[in-house]
Amino acid sequence: MTYYGLHALQHRGQEATGIVTSDFDFTRRRPRFLTHKGVGLVADVFKDANILKDQLRGRSAIGHNRYSTTGASENKLNIQPFVVNYRGGNLALSHNGNLTNFKTLRERLEGEGTIFQSTSDSEIILHLTARSRKENQIQQIKEALETVEGAYSLVILTDTSLIAARDPHGFRPLALGRLGDAFVVASETCAFAPIGADFEREILPGEMLVISAKGGSASGGDEAEIRSEQIAPSNPKLDIFEFVYFARPDSELLGKSVDAVRKNYGIQLAKEHSLKADVVIPVPDTAIPSAIGFARASGIPFEIGIIKNRYIHRTFITPDQHVRERGVKAKLTPLPYIIAGKRVIIVDDSIVRGTNSRQIVKMVFDAGASEVHFLVASPPVKYPDFYGIDTPQQEKLLAATKSLEEMRKFLGATSLHFLSYEGLIQATEIPENQLCTSCFTGVYPIDIGERAKEVRKVDF
Amino acid sequence: MTYYGLHALQHRGQEATGIVTSDFDFTRRRPRFLTHKGVGLVADVFKDANILKDQLRGRSAIGHNRYSTTGASENKLNIQPFVVNYRGGNLALSHNGNLTNFKTLRERLEGEGTIFQSTSDSEIILHLTARSRKENQIQQIKEALETVEGAYSLVILTDTSLIAARDPHGFRPLALGRLGDAFVVASETCAFAPIGADFEREILPGEMLVISAKGGSASGGDEAEIRSEQIAPSNPKLDIFEFVYFARPDSELLGKSVDAVRKNYGIQLAKEHSLKADVVIPVPDTAIPSAIGFARASGIPFEIGIIKNRYIHRTFITPDQHVRERGVKAKLTPLPYIIAGKRVIIVDDSIVRGTNSRQIVKMVFDAGASEVHFLVASPPVKYPDFYGIDTPQQEKLLAATKSLEEMRKFLGATSLHFLSYEGLIQATEIPENQLCTSCFTGVYPIDIGERAKEVRKVDF
Amino acid sequence: MTYYGLHALQHRGQEATGIVTSDFDFTRRRPRFLTHKGVGLVADVFKDANILKDQLRGRSAIGHNRYSTTGASENKLNIQPFVVNYRGGNLALSHNGNLTNFKTLRERLEGEGTIFQSTSDSEIILHLTARSRKENQIQQIKEALETVEGAYSLVILTDTSLIAARDPHGFRPLALGRLGDAFVVASETCAFAPIGADFEREILPGEMLVISAKGGSASGGDEAEIRSEQIAPSNPKLDIFEFVYFARPDSELLGKSVDAVRKNYGIQLAKEHSLKADVVIPVPDTAIPSAIGFARASGIPFEIGIIKNRYIHRTFITPDQHVRERGVKAKLTPLPYIIAGKRVIIVDDSIVRGTNSRQIVKMVFDAGASEVHFLVASPPVKYPDFYGIDTPQQEKLLAATKSLEEMRKFLGATSLHFLSYEGLIQATEIPENQLCTSCFTGVYPIDIGERAKEVRKVDF
Amino acid sequence: MTYYGLHALQHRGQEATGIVTSDFDFTRRRPRFLTHKGVGLVADVFKDANILKDQLRGRSAIGHNRYSTTGASENKLNIQPFVVNYRGGNLALSHNGNLTNFKTLRERLEGEGTIFQSTSDSEIILHLTARSRKENQIQQIKEALETVEGAYSLVILTDTSLIAARDPHGFRPLALGRLGDAFVVASETCAFAPIGADFEREILPGEMLVISAKGGSASGGDEAEIRSEQIAPSNPKLDIFEFVYFARPDSELLGKSVDAVRKNYGIQLAKEHSLKADVVIPVPDTAIPSAIGFARASGIPFEIGIIKNRYIHRTFITPDQHVRERGVKAKLTPLPYIIAGKRVIIVDDSIVRGTNSRQIVKMVFDAGASEVHFLVASPPVKYPDFYGIDTPQQEKLLAATKSLEEMRKFLGATSLHFLSYEGLIQATEIPENQLCTSCFTGVYPIDIGERAKEVRKVDF
Repeated sequence: MTYYGLHALQHRGQEATGIVTSDFDFTRRRPRFLTHKGVGLVADVFKDANILKDQLRGRSAIGHNRYSTTGASENKLNIQPFVVNYRGGNLALSHNGNLTNFKTLRERLEGEGTIFQSTSDSEIILHLTARSRKENQIQQIKEALETVEGAYSLVILTDTSLIAARDPHGFRPLALGRLGDAFVVASETCAFAPIGADFEREILPGEMLVISAKGGSASGGDEAEIRSEQIAPSNPKLDIFEFVYFARPDSELLGKSVDAVRKNYGIQLAKEHSLKADVVIPVPDTAIPSAIGFARASGIPFEIGIIKNRYIHRTFITPDQHVRERGVKAKLTPLPYIIAGKRVIIVDDSIVRGTNSRQIVKMVFDAGASEVHFLVASPPVKYPDFYGIDTPQQEKLLAATKSLEEMRKFLGATSLHFLSYEGLIQATEIPENQLCTSCFTGVYPIDIGERAKEVRKVDF
Repeated sequence: MTYYGLHALQHRGQEATGIVTSDFDFTRRRPRFLTHKGVGLVADVFKDANILKDQLRGRSAIGHNRYSTTGASENKLNIQPFVVNYRGGNLALSHNGNLTNFKTLRERLEGEGTIFQSTSDSEIILHLTARSRKENQIQQIKEALETVEGAYSLVILTDTSLIAARDPHGFRPLALGRLGDAFVVASETCAFAPIGADFEREILPGEMLVISAKGGSASGGDEAEIRSEQIAPSNPKLDIFEFVYFARPDSELLGKSVDAVRKNYGIQLAKEHSLKADVVIPVPDTAIPSAIGFARASGIPFEIGIIKNRYIHRTFITPDQHVRERGVKAKLTPLPYIIAGKRVIIVDDSIVRGTNSRQIVKMVFDAGASEVHFLVASPPVKYPDFYGIDTPQQEKLLAATKSLEEMRKFLGATSLHFLSYEGLIQATEIPENQLCTSCFTGVYPIDIGERAKEVRKVDF
Repeated sequence: MTYYGLHALQHRGQEATGIVTSDFDFTRRRPRFLTHKGVGLVADVFKDANILKDQLRGRSAIGHNRYSTTGASENKLNIQPFVVNYRGGNLALSHNGNLTNFKTLRERLEGEGTIFQSTSDSEIILHLTARSRKENQIQQIKEALETVEGAYSLVILTDTSLIAARDPHGFRPLALGRLGDAFVVASETCAFAPIGADFEREILPGEMLVISAKGGSASGGDEAEIRSEQIAPSNPKLDIFEFVYFARPDSELLGKSVDAVRKNYGIQLAKEHSLKADVVIPVPDTAIPSAIGFARASGIPFEIGIIKNRYIHRTFITPDQHVRERGVKAKLTPLPYIIAGKRVIIVDDSIVRGTNSRQIVKMVFDAGASEVHFLVASPPVKYPDFYGIDTPQQEKLLAATKSLEEMRKFLGATSLHFLSYEGLIQATEIPENQLCTSCFTGVYPIDIGERAKEVRKVDF
Repeated sequence: MTYYGLHALQHRGQEATGIVTSDFDFTRRRPRFLTHKGVGLVADVFKDANILKDQLRGRSAIGHNRYSTTGASENKLNIQPFVVNYRGGNLALSHNGNLTNFKTLRERLEGEGTIFQSTSDSEIILHLTARSRKENQIQQIKEALETVEGAYSLVILTDTSLIAARDPHGFRPLALGRLGDAFVVASETCAFAPIGADFEREILPGEMLVISAKGGSASGGDEAEIRSEQIAPSNPKLDIFEFVYFARPDSELLGKSVDAVRKNYGIQLAKEHSLKADVVIPVPDTAIPSAIGFARASGIPFEIGIIKNRYIHRTFITPDQHVRERGVKAKLTPLPYIIAGKRVIIVDDSIVRGTNSRQIVKMVFDAGASEVHFLVASPPVKYPDFYGIDTPQQEKLLAATKSLEEMRKFLGATSLHFLSYEGLIQATEIPENQLCTSCFTGVYPIDIGERAKEVRKVDF
């Protein structure tokens, strides 16, 4: 189950993956945790079916796909779930998000003699739990979560329970599903269908769920029970980038279909920008619904005019500098029969560095387009993220250093248009104060501490 | 170059892959062949960049992606390119297609004491070449090709030349490109753009091309020269399944864009079948252009209503029998906001076994469709292929054993419609006598020998 | 250097091995530790020469060969050197010996929230160091060593120093060598010659040596300086089993050649036991010098009458139960031309379980011996070891449960003779009170705590 | 069984190893061959016990340890046993020795179109067998053996039989053993004891043995029957180097204990050279019996004065040029307490290049010897071997280019003495005309063809 779930969530992290199961060792009459982790995609790390069948036995499990935002990606000790055995028993943890007071806490604990194994911010939660004086694991974890700040969607496995928790702002998604008598927790709802589970509800910002076997014994029956506790007041700030780019289109966030929201972005784009063109083409895959929305609202024909190679993943070797353009060429091919002699509108989901977009514009002109209008289904990204998405330093963000016209020239496009910020909020159909929009506005809901030095206000 | 080319052709074979380069060993003053092969995708087998940079040096190279039609897939000796050193020098070979007189030839050679290393039909060409009494490699290869029958698109590397050859019928594609002073040969034209090469022309049925360094020395200059010889009269029979399913949409075959032909299939479908529905949805990815064509011709809105997981490849573990439906569920998810309460038209490229189609129909109904009309952008597949596509035995082909109504019931669809055979030919815009259509008609252009016993005429 | 040293010390641990180097990262201007560890012999774990040349750069290094006495051998986290990064900087540690107050200390630290990574007793020293309030690493380590009890010969690598320390009793050996301007520390002196170093002196019981670059900077010059501190009063108790069995014959301990001491044991045996026989044969390899000594003193001819297979190591698969004797048969072969029809004296170094000895007696009789006299160059082993040698539980020690005559019967020997305890001490030529003889006497120099329950007094 | 046998024969080849079993596939009702091969020692290549238990099932098996004399050692295709499937069925082959007409035969077969997979001379036997027109496998193999010339001790596995054959001169050993109702064939008799088998007799020069299940069926009963055929007249020429260096001391050749013959060499040395010295020390391990023989005959005390590291094998990384002496230092250590101030006699088995001997002399002087007399238990090696032992080119043989006094100077020894050729023959106690002594005499019993150019007569 966990394997299929991780596979459905592969887009959230492609560097490394792992699964931990909680098994009851009847010979030694105590729980034990079984682990398999590795660098690469889910299908590669678990390609030996025996790992799943024989090695990862047990009644409950958690997994993790790694996408590094803190902690060196080459360090194998940084692959989650983290597993430890401490006074309170076994503990495994998977964390999505970034802790903003990580440095302060790490220095404090190191000052008290704690030895860290990884360079990841997530490890801090384990040490805080192990050092808690509270009498049971649930209380210890709760105390640890009261100490950390920032973004965290967590699943934790103990000897007796599966715990799910989300920070008070709910920056990153986390959802609860049901599969017969059992419960399932996943970052996105798209993980439920492949395992036959039904989406129940989102874990609330500030909520902690404790799922255990009815009766409570680690070696006990199959039926699960669930307890919820609001461990901090909810102040929701879902990262709007989940809608713009990160989440899978077949997921649902705050009651909205991600695909439908992206289509709305395209419709809104058409309202804001009236263009004359012969064909609307998405940059595959994220921008497809926005391009369909734009085409329908504008009346300009939609075409899949750029084909994406279906086998491009992380293991693909990045070409050398002197063949720099090959990266995009190996990934995307234009269809001249659709493009040649046409006024083309390209729709993309967002512009970050702008280097790929520039190559796409060139590629479409090379395929014979007479005009290339570049439309972006989100506002300019002017500020870096600190809550769990790996954006480059601010000076590498195209919109942080260039005006609209400068950007258009950089891309080499006939025209360049962004969705307005107001249009974005309106098309998302969620109140602005329930969203984190820091990438566009520079407004950070949680103090980012000393990292504030990395950000300056962008004035144009 | 070969790596990027193989990567672009990954869809033609995902089991195993290999590259052989021809290098001149200046120390020992003679050519030597360098090889790396392995089971898996191109990006995985060559994931160590040092293999490409250091190990596979040389001035010319060939590669192969394996898709097994003969020869056990688990046998590593069956991974191509095959490399041998014989009296005439080094020889490496990559073969796409099936030899129809394979068994007869193998028995004859074994009877004369030849030892075979693999169970693949392709190895026969090597032995015939090595046993030829002709005085040079080119003549030896030519003699070998005059002996074999069936489908072959070949690239062969010798100590001095790169040879490309195609059987007299040209069942499988093979194209010539140019990259500066050098030449490139690939199964499909989609391999040229990623490496910056330009498509020149197709290798003709019955043609053999010999590409060598100008002046002819193995250690010689960089400029290439090319010689063409028609080694057998051309009688073109390109497999129409390349258009229907196999080739990449951004390839060109016989002067036609594959994507455009597929769009024509959709337009033709709309002419043949007038349906009332609310939305047209492709089964991703092959059927997308057909669905767009159908939608445009019928006026029914097009939607990407089924999302495909982008990480599904061969290494993905097939779920056990009791979770049979998970295979499709892990791969495809419907979008209820598009489907619920709607009369849905699903467009797929073809129906072979029908098991996947059945699950897709169920999935779309489960997502709330009121009607599910299943449209197929090709005629019923009633006969197996013997020229290089891995189709199941005839009795496992849905259309070989069931009438249209029986098929509809099996799928559980509201209605089921196929493209007519005449419509297929017309929409392909290539004369029928230049195509191999055996999957639909049971007419086999080359005698399939004793395998004829595997086929019976389908009457409905 | 470390590789060759570990290789010379391979006999002290064959389960796993590792090397850690301290390198100065000039880019980031700070020290970093580089590590390679693995299960198996030194030559196997480091068989890729690039690991040594490229990966393990640096100016100082420590290594470790694992021989498990505490901590599960299958746990990879138990492979030393242990490496951590804590407040004080990088720290790596290799430990030979057993800590007797391990359980108490671990429980105390876990109670305070410390998370342990391994099940090894050695890890405790790292946590005690990290938690020390002392202001520099040297003082922190010193404080940690004042807390632990038991046997420890240690090498520790910090960002600026290489530290060597030995417990106040000096149970296990530890020696200092010099190589040009540099210093080397090794468990036995036999590690010096292979790297071209000269033996300087033993580290004293209770001594801590700090070796650093002259001037003290981590990125500094090549000349080393050394400081010594007696951190606890010396009360020497070298484990006499190092002479009897464990150390390599070409090592020197307390000024004595191990080979020479073993020869003395043989001479002493001859004084104590006058036997009539035709030939003296050692069980190879440890007993060879004792057999030579016995032969010379008794005048009975010495012969290598049992040949040892030179390729028997840990990776050799233990045969199944029903071929139980194959283990010894695959390892040792008798030479009938030496044995047949003779009265044979076999000399072995010690008897622990007695199972191998029994098979050897049978093998020699099968080769035609008329009499087999079994002589042991040490007294009966009646008590288990708790200071770093892996002996079985007391009830599995042959001499703990059987009288001399019972043992003789068990072995099936014509006669059985042990070296007397007094003879052992006398032949070692070291005062009895400077030796730990607990295996023979049951007198344990350090309180073994709750493990005392595992031992009972043997009366015969 | 084969695993334990290969392990006992590890000294005959340490590069690579493999096992092939013949199993009857009851599902498909036909025999099949199962294989596992790899680079490294037996214990490493087969360290996964499942390979032996599950993968290598069957009723008969052959194995091989590779020691390369022809064919590049890095080529994995050169690892034996070779396995092929040809018209006659399955065939696997293990070959010890060198074929002298290899080049001629390979050129002839290649000229007829045969493709070779390896660069090994052994493959020729497979092709000759496959091309034979004889009607059964036994006759085909016999015909192949009548065509090849040179040294071959062979075991061959067919679908129904285990075949053992030895060339008419019997250059390399081959012995038959019995284990209950079954038969065992091995290069040396030392392989029988570890598996519980009894030595029956040597395979005779020119003899071919066919061992099959009684009744002859591949799926048949357990009892074996054996047929012998003299396929060529016997003209025995056992390579005397088997006694001098190659064979294990616990093997028996032509009725002589190898260990006893080596002891005789030492006794003979003492007869030929009367020296004044304090101690006799062998270079371990081969020279130990010769040193014991010498010591006993001369009355000078025997000592193990040089200790050999027991973990030195092929995987050990050869040190760089600038630490050239470390190779010997990592392998051998002198014991100063035995050597210092003494007149030392070192006994070695042979001198080939002389580089190791030179370092040993220096090492012994460095350990304090006042004189170092170097005695060699065989005559000077002046000519290369062409029948299966890997000797260097003639100009690299110390005795091929230097006089006795020049050699002494090169070694730096006080004196240097060799066993006389006549003494060697006499001490071997086998008629000279039954031995191949070409290394010492330059007399080659079989024409070595064009390789004769590599040899010139040595006159001193």
